[in-house]
Formats: sequence, structure tokens, C-alpha cells
Amino acid sequence: MAFGYNGKILQVNLSSKTTSVLEPDEKWYRTYFGGSGFIGRFLLTEVSPQVDPLGPENVLIFACSVVTGAPFSGFNRYAVGAKSPLTGGFARTEAAGYFGPELKFAGYDAIIITGTADSPVYLWINDGKVEIRDGSGLWGLDNWETLERLREETGEQKVRVVSIGPAGERLIPFACLQNDLEHFNGRTGMGAVMGSKNLKAIAVRGTGKMEMADPEKVKELSKWHRERIKTHPPNVGLTKVGTPGLVQGVNAAGFLTTRNFKEGQFEGAEKLAAENYHNTIFASRGTCWHCTVACKRQVVLDDPQYPLDKRFGGPEYEALAALGALLAIDNLPAVAYGNQLCNLLGLDVISTGAVIAFAMECFEEGILTEADTEGKSIKFGDAQAMVWLIRRIAERKGIGEVLSRGVKKAAESIGRGAERYAFHIKGQELAFHDGRGKTGMGMGFALSPTGADHIETPHDVAFQGEGISKLYPMGLLDPVVPVKTDAAKVRFFYIGQKAWGINNLLGLCNFCSVPIHAMTFPKLVDTIQAITGWETSLYEIVLGVERANVMARVFNNRCGFTPDDDTLIRRWFEKMPSGPLKGAHFDPTEFRGWIQLYYDMSGWDTQGRPTPGKLVELGLDWLLEEPSEAV
Amino acid sequence: MAFGYNGKILQVNLSSKTTSVLEPDEKWYRTYFGGSGFIGRFLLTEVSPQVDPLGPENVLIFACSVVTGAPFSGFNRYAVGAKSPLTGGFARTEAAGYFGPELKFAGYDAIIITGTADSPVYLWINDGKVEIRDGSGLWGLDNWETLERLREETGEQKVRVVSIGPAGERLIPFACLQNDLEHFNGRTGMGAVMGSKNLKAIAVRGTGKMEMADPEKVKELSKWHRERIKTHPPNVGLTKVGTPGLVQGVNAAGFLTTRNFKEGQFEGAEKLAAENYHNTIFASRGTCWHCTVACKRQVVLDDPQYPLDKRFGGPEYEALAALGALLAIDNLPAVAYGNQLCNLLGLDVISTGAVIAFAMECFEEGILTEADTEGKSIKFGDAQAMVWLIRRIAERKGIGEVLSRGVKKAAESIGRGAERYAFHIKGQELAFHDGRGKTGMGMGFALSPTGADHIETPHDVAFQGEGISKLYPMGLLDPVVPVKTDAAKVRFFYIGQKAWGINNLLGLCNFCSVPIHAMTFPKLVDTIQAITGWETSLYEIVLGVERANVMARVFNNRCGFTPDDDTLIRRWFEKMPSGPLKGAHFDPTEFRGWIQLYYDMSGWDTQGRPTPGKLVELGLDWLLEEPSEAV
Repeated sequence: MAFGYNGKILQVNLSSKTTSVLEPDEKWYRTYFGGSGFIGRFLLTEVSPQVDPLGPENVLIFACSVVTGAPFSGFNRYAVGAKSPLTGGFARTEAAGYFGPELKFAGYDAIIITGTADSPVYLWINDGKVEIRDGSGLWGLDNWETLERLREETGEQKVRVVSIGPAGERLIPFACLQNDLEHFNGRTGMGAVMGSKNLKAIAVRGTGKMEMADPEKVKELSKWHRERIKTHPPNVGLTKVGTPGLVQGVNAAGFLTTRNFKEGQFEGAEKLAAENYHNTIFASRGTCWHCTVACKRQVVLDDPQYPLDKRFGGPEYEALAALGALLAIDNLPAVAYGNQLCNLLGLDVISTGAVIAFAMECFEEGILTEADTEGKSIKFGDAQAMVWLIRRIAERKGIGEVLSRGVKKAAESIGRGAERYAFHIKGQELAFHDGRGKTGMGMGFALSPTGADHIETPHDVAFQGEGISKLYPMGLLDPVVPVKTDAAKVRFFYIGQKAWGINNLLGLCNFCSVPIHAMTFPKLVDTIQAITGWETSLYEIVLGVERANVMARVFNNRCGFTPDDDTLIRRWFEKMPSGPLKGAHFDPTEFRGWIQLYYDMSGWDTQGRPTPGKLVELGLDWLLEEPSEAV
Repeated sequence: MAFGYNGKILQVNLSSKTTSVLEPDEKWYRTYFGGSGFIGRFLLTEVSPQVDPLGPENVLIFACSVVTGAPFSGFNRYAVGAKSPLTGGFARTEAAGYFGPELKFAGYDAIIITGTADSPVYLWINDGKVEIRDGSGLWGLDNWETLERLREETGEQKVRVVSIGPAGERLIPFACLQNDLEHFNGRTGMGAVMGSKNLKAIAVRGTGKMEMADPEKVKELSKWHRERIKTHPPNVGLTKVGTPGLVQGVNAAGFLTTRNFKEGQFEGAEKLAAENYHNTIFASRGTCWHCTVACKRQVVLDDPQYPLDKRFGGPEYEALAALGALLAIDNLPAVAYGNQLCNLLGLDVISTGAVIAFAMECFEEGILTEADTEGKSIKFGDAQAMVWLIRRIAERKGIGEVLSRGVKKAAESIGRGAERYAFHIKGQELAFHDGRGKTGMGMGFALSPTGADHIETPHDVAFQGEGISKLYPMGLLDPVVPVKTDAAKVRFFYIGQKAWGINNLLGLCNFCSVPIHAMTFPKLVDTIQAITGWETSLYEIVLGVERANVMARVFNNRCGFTPDDDTLIRRWFEKMPSGPLKGAHFDPTEFRGWIQLYYDMSGWDTQGRPTPGKLVELGLDWLLEEPSEAV
């Protein structure tokens, strides 16, 4: 090929304490690209679908891509995958920050971790050299303490660390990973998998240089991208107010998930929204490697009850919704403090908010009583109850132990009809976008291989009217009506999912990339070409996305998922009770039709299984179980 | 949209002698693009599948594209379509030359001709003005005489004329159209459809200018393309020796169709090949509008028996194979003269050669005797017999009347086992590439909606070893083995068919465009963007190709085609008897498996019908016959 991409993949066996290096050929890299592609590939070849997610046979994958670390805003994300302890199927979760590029500069595109250490360890990757070090001294520390300790132990102030908090150590199935205290691989419980392996952290230092196939072109494109970010309205907004800027609009449109998904508007939304945020707790902007957008917020509050420290990451939109609207809490310092606790303890704030909302609704419905809660009242709107519950969950104590299993298993354990209030898809709690108001995103929640994931689904609202022009290069010419569900919406979702999937394949940030933000499809293709030297195309890249999607689907099918798992929560089949979307809902029968139509579009059979033709088209012939019969 | 593409489509009703103009919106143009897209769209909406191809209800479509006439080599082709009198299904046939750009400069992207004139007419399109003129004086003239007469009648020496010869007037189902005497819409019998409408010719003069969205970029890209043509090896070869340059290589490789597809090598090939051609009959190079390649050959011979006139077009590869190797004739002047006759009389030289080969083999097998042939011997190798048969076919007299029906119907009429020697797919005679030697092209013959078409099928031989790098942007990374048939070959065909289909969608010449010749996928995308102003992508363009393919398929299905029609000729299921490909053949059972795998890849059901999901994906919801049930 034009440019000799010669990457390395680090393999670490924690049981035998050995490491080795894979060097796939360029064709392999051009087939799987990175992120979702690497994870799909390794899960299917290295993990039996029957394994216990928290057993030594599970494999934990850290995946950059062929372009991670190139000097462009947003080219910094890495994905983590395994079999999920939360869903029992395909897990993948991305984070930004500095860890991904650092890993690349240390010489590795990915890390494949197998086995389980017999006592706590951490990995120390120093410019290609790898040590499996004793981590006993780190066990029990929160993420901040862990980072500080690793700076000391490695002697590198600039070390980049991904770690788990006590939640991961305690195998909470929605425990997350963090890096640099404000970037999180939040979903699908990868913290528990890391904890189950007795792996507290991975510390990386890399000083290598990434070679560019066409350095001049890279410079030119990077400059273009940087300049565009400064003027492209959605990016200007993110720079100015970050994701908290979404609260007001989402609430006004009526799909801000409120009181455990019952309502779409929250009367206290204004207190959580950007203006109040910036007037009260905002301290400074945070950013990621080489990013001009700098959408991160850092917060400070000198308050005895809810002290906020700017090192620990300010709440984003999802946290404001999770611990705010969903719980009907309008106390912004409390929400920010709850978020900070989750960050330090290593709990996914989305699932944590959802499990607390579930508990609060159960309490209000009399399904849980003070007999279950150590005598505490845990009603909607109670900020102290929220903070108390976060601590109890992280400790896995009392009601916290029940809730720490996630809403699905907590409801099973509680019984008494609690499952009526346990909102999850495939076992994973939902992110906070009411699908009744953006039905394309609703389909995305239903069809995401990881369960209800907002990172891989197209946002209907951005494609109304002239907004659809952003998707012209993907062949979509019809403006989208967010609340409508029809065949055109299924097509929008089908194609939009591929547009978004590019970012998860290549490790790009949605906030810097296609289709909404400061990247265009033609410039992205040029950029990938300038970095890799591959004369590529949007067609080839989308084929990579579809390949990754199909691998995830096949893994889930092998784990026993069926079309019944591609569903929505009860509340979205019921009419929105109030607000601008009053009456909006999915019709259950129609919804099954849309799912089948999506299968049909995807080249999947009526059971949601990719056909032999689809596998062959994608070069996934190796997934044909009975190749000679099947074709 | 970014650039207001505001084209016009001319509608002509020959029954009522009225004309009108359609002005589709830009979204329509961006959905159907041109060529194969326009034809699919209009056949499905304007033609009932039940119509008599030679009746007034058939519709004849001339289609340029949104980029036809842009100043690039090869951006000059137009397609002609209708229901085919040869196959009874979807017809489409492209030609280059000057007619397409001239039509655009006259203000029209396409012409839709309906009805039948009660006496011969011709169309005179003069910069947007349209006249349906009396053509009685033209009836019976050959193509040369017709052109001369129309220059006089219009008073325009620079008039561009598409016309039919006597073959079209006599409704021979493989009669062709020509323009400028050396460019032919050869296949699928469009000459007969034009004849059935009493339409002898269309004369066009256009002096308008085509607006470019980004004239500077167009200039830059056009210059790049022109310069690349001068150095890109396949183009250098075409410039130097034209398509006759193929004869030697095809013969050496063993897939030069010889003696009615019996063999793959012809002992007299050298006499037909480029060197002898250039030493004996070559006069000058011909070209098409704005083309730097100039692959056309013009020939001259001052010979009483086989006089050659440079105005009438020299034989191309297909003609050399059709009237040479296929008939075992190595007399180059005779072959060139036979080709010249076909050109003037308006017979498709491919079908003409095939029907003569059929007759010769029937004669040698004793199925036809001198009782059928007015006492003449018509054996393989007999040049005089070939010339005599061409004349008899054009006259539809004697054995010529039988043969003029095409091999399929001729064999039915002859009986006596003649169908064993009648080689066609879907009723259309094959172009001259033995599928046993390039199995991807074999699949293309089987699956082409028009029956055995070499213009829309990937040539396996160009993609061996490093050659596959041309198709990297289409996601194909594995080198092709021409003679092998396996799942990888089906994928190669499936994707390669889309790569080739771009040229039929946009009216580009295969010899200037992707994937083999002096255009690359990235530059092509840039070029379309610079011309139209559309921020497009290879993904969007390929979606357009697939849309066109699916429309053609649906039309054929509605005409009653079934999977049994997606087949190969008997001889290709039998072992190649000799030469380097000795023993090569398609296994009939395996072959059915590949066809089913292709359906599966395509999102078609086991009966070869596009699924509702595929139709919706492509925005062809209007083809769902029972939309509410089907989804």
C-alpha cells in the first residue's frame, strides 16, 4: 500500500504476567481502522460468548485508531471494550482526553488484556517498554489519589493514567474508567471488568512522533479545521458554554428526561442551565489533546456541604440531566457535587442517576419504604438523598448494594412490581434524551449493541429544514421531522447511524467531527488520506463502520440476544403526559415494523442476524459459521 | 442546495406531435443524476411492463447527466433506454461522441419520446427550439446519407445527429443508433424502437454554455486529468493503438471468444491485432467531445471487394472479435468492411457477429443446410459469407430474415436443436469476453439487467496483484484471481459493478474514468463537486448507482424475469477445450449459489426482488407496491 502503516498492538496476560506484541499488516488496519472496529474484531476472535464478564476469560480492549493522535481537534478518543457485566453482551465505551494519543506516542494502537492478576497491579507503559507493577498500594484509592500516587511512582508528572475508583474494585456493573479526572469511559461497566482483573490503572508516557504521510497537507487541513471551529456556530456554542448549553433547549423542546423519564420538561431546568452554571460554579474551561473547542467545564465552589474542586471535572449535560432533571433536583451545587463524587469513586453518572431515579420513584410508589432505606426518605427533588445514595451505591451497602446492580437487576431483586420503574435497554440504563421527541435517537437506543447509547445515534433535531444539508454527502436529502416515525425516519436513522459511527470507528469526537460539527465529509476523507497515505473514500470508511456494527451485532447474537432485546422502555410506548410533546409516543406494533425494516435495510434476517451475503460483502467471511452450506 | 441545478427535460409525443418541458427540482437531479438513473426512473413511471416494445406505448429515453458536457475527457456519453425488443425487459445502451454534450448545450438533459408518428419524422432541436419535421425523404437512407441530408436540411454543418439505418426502420431487434458515423448505442435494439416510432433521426445544435459551480477548480482538475491521460499507461495504450490493442492480450490469455464461444484462442488473432491493423488499414485517430485519449480508429482501404472509408468508423475490439475470431475469420479488411456495413445499415455489430456465428455453427452441424441459405455455404472462416449474411440480415431476406430476429428467436424458429448453438443471456447476444477466463465479468453477463453487457461489469484481469489498489477506495483489498470463482469473487463483482456503474450513471467513458483509467475516485468526487456545487461523496454517488441498478431490476421483475434468467450460456458450464484456460468452467450448482449470494449482498430476496428495506434505503419508497403492508 501507499504508506506502510506499521502499528503495534500490546497484549498483556495478567494471569501469567507476560506481555507480547502483535503487528498486524496494513490490510488488517485498513479493514478494522480502530475503535469499534478493533473491539468487534478482538471480541469475536478472543472472547467466547459464554464467558463470565467478571471472570479471567473476559478480555479488556483499549483501542485507538490509525488516526488517533494526529494534530486535529477531536482526534483523541479511545474506546474500551469487553463482554459487558451490565448487559451480558457487547461493550464499548469511548473517552477523550490525553490518554489515547499518549498510548499512540508510546508506540501502541491498542492494548488487549487477558487473564486476572492474583493481586492488584497496574500497567506502566513507558515509550514502548511495559511493566506489570504491584498495585496493592493503590487499591481502595479514589481516582484522584491514584493519579497522584502514580505520578510519584513513575516519577513522571506528565504520565497519563486511566484508572478505576472503588466502584470498579467492588465490581459494580456500571463502574467506569477515567483519565485525567475529567474524561470517562462511562458506559457498559468497563470499570468492573478492570476491577475483576485486579488492574487498578494503566499509566502511559509516550514521547514518540506519529508519522504523517503528507505532512504539508496535514498542516493545511488542520489549520482549516482549527479556523472553522472558531466560526462554526455549534462549535462556537460548545466553546462558550460547553454541553450545559444544551439544557435549556432540550427542556424547551420538551425532551429533557424528568422524574425517571415520566416527563419531558423540568420546572427547575433554568437553574441547571448554562447561564446559572456560569454565574455560580464555573471556574475554567478544560480541553482534550490538541483540541480548539475546549468544551469541558471545570467548577469551583467553596461550600462545606457541596465543595467543588476544579481538578475533578464539572458536570456535563448528561450529569445535569442524570442528577438534576431526572431526579427533579434543581440545586446545581448538589448536582455538581454528586457528579464529582461519581467521578472520584468511578461510577458512571448516567447509570447512577438512572438507578437513583428508579429508587426514588419506587419510594414514592411505596415499593421501597424506609424499611429498605435505613429510615431515610428518598423522594424526587431531595439533593441530600441523592448524595447519600451515591455513597451507599459506591460502598455497596444497604439499599446501595441493591441499587449497585443496575436498575434491571435491582428491580428483579426488589420485586413488588419494581420493574415497572426500571428503565433500561438490554440491561443498560438510558442516556437522557427522550426518544418520544427524537424518534431517530429512540431507534438508536433500541438498536445500539451496547444498550441505550447516545454516542452512536443521530440527533434528529439537528437535521430539520436546511439542517439536512449536512447529510447530503450520505445521500439523505429529505429534512427530518424529529417527532415523526415513518419509513423515512428509519432511513434517516440507518444512514445517520453510519455517519456517527465514523467517529467511533476512528476515535473522533462528535463535537469536532461530522456530521454536525466543524468537519465536513469531504475534508474528513482528505484528512484521513493525508494522515495515512491511503487513497480512501467515504464509501470505504462507511464500509468500515458497517463492518464494526455487524461484528457487534454478531457478538450479541452469539451472547443470546434476540429481536426482543431491540426495544424501548415502557414509558416511550405511553403518551408524553405534558409539555410541547404532549401525546407523543411510539406505537408498539408500528415500532416492531420499523425495527424489522431496519433489519431489512441492514441485510439482516428477521431475527436480526446478518445474512451470509452481508458478511461476505464486508469481508467478514470468517464469521460464516457454516461457510459451505451458508453460501 | 448549494448550486441551483436547473435542468430541463424535453418531452416529445410523436402521436400528437406535441412537445413539452419538464423541470425537475434539484433534489430530483441529485437523486437520479443521469444516464442509468434517468432511464430507470422514467421506465418505471412512464412505461407499463406489459407494453409491446415496438408499439406506441413504449417510451424512448435519451439521457445525459448533470455532468455531461463538462470539459473533461470522457464526460460525453449519453444513454438510450426503453423496453427492449430483444430481451423484453430493461434496455439501456450508451454512446460517446458529440451528441450528448450538444444536447446539453441546446438546453436539455434528456429527451423522453412517447407515441408513434404516422409517417417518418425527425426531430430538430436548435438551441432549445424543437421541431418535429417530416422525415419521409430520409426513410431508407443509410446513416451516412442521413447525416449528409440533415446537414443540408438544417443548414448547419455542425449539426449533431443520432439516426437509425435501414435495420432500425425494418425493426430488427438488434438494430442500433449511431451518431457521427462512428459512435453507437449498440445494444438492446434501440434502433428498432426508434424505427417503430417512425423517428429516423434527432438533429441537435446547441451553442449554450454549461455553468460550472467552481470554474477555477474545474480548470485545475481538467488540466490534471488531461496531463494524467498522457502518462497513465492504460490511456497511453488506448491513444496509441485503441481497443484493437486488446486482441493480442485477450487471445494470449485464452479468453478471445472463438468459433461461436467454443474456444478461447484464435489462430488468426495476430492478423486482427493492433500491429497488423496499423500497418494495413489504419488511417487516423478519431475522438469524442473534449477527449484527450482519442481511442477511435479510422480506416481506409482502396480495395474493390472491401473498400474502407475513414468517415465510417474503423473496427474496435468488439467488432474484431465479432466478425473475426468468433467467425474464425482472419481477413482484416473483410472484418473492417463488415463492420462498416453494420455501421451504415444500423446493425449492432456484436449481435450481428453472434447471430452469424450461430448460423455458421448450425451450418457446420447440419442444422442449417444450403436449402436454408439460398445454396450458399456459410462456414466458419468464410469472409464472403459473413458479408453476404450482414446484407441479408439488414434486408430481412431469406436466411437473413430468420437471423435478424436474434439468436434466441432464430433458434426457436429453426428448431432441430439449433438452440444448443444460440448463445444469449436474457435474449441478448454476448459481448466477446469468455467468462470462463474472467469469472467476475461472467457474473456481470449473467446479472446485467440488459442481458450480457460488457460495459457495466468489472474486468477481473485489471485487478490482479497490485492492480487491486485501484479499488481500495471501494473497500476491496484482496487481489483478484481472474479464473477463480468463490465468495471473494462475488464480492469483487458486487463492488466492482458499482464502481463501473458510476460511469453509466454519470455518462462517463470507462476509458477516461474510474477505476482503471486516468481518473481516481477522490478526484472524481472533487470533479463532480466542482461542476455541480454539490458537496458530495463517493458514498452518495454509489448510492445513486445502486438506486439505478435496483430500478432496472424492478423493471425486469415486473416484465416477468426470474432468477432463471440470471444465467450463463451452456458453453461456459462446459470445460474450455484448449488453450491456457483448458478445463476452466462454471459449475452449475456452485454458480446458482453465487447468484444467490449476490442477491443476498444486494438486499434482494431469493427470487431476486429488492426487499422493502432496500427500496426504502435508496429512497425508492414509491416502488413499494403495497407500502403499508410491505413495511
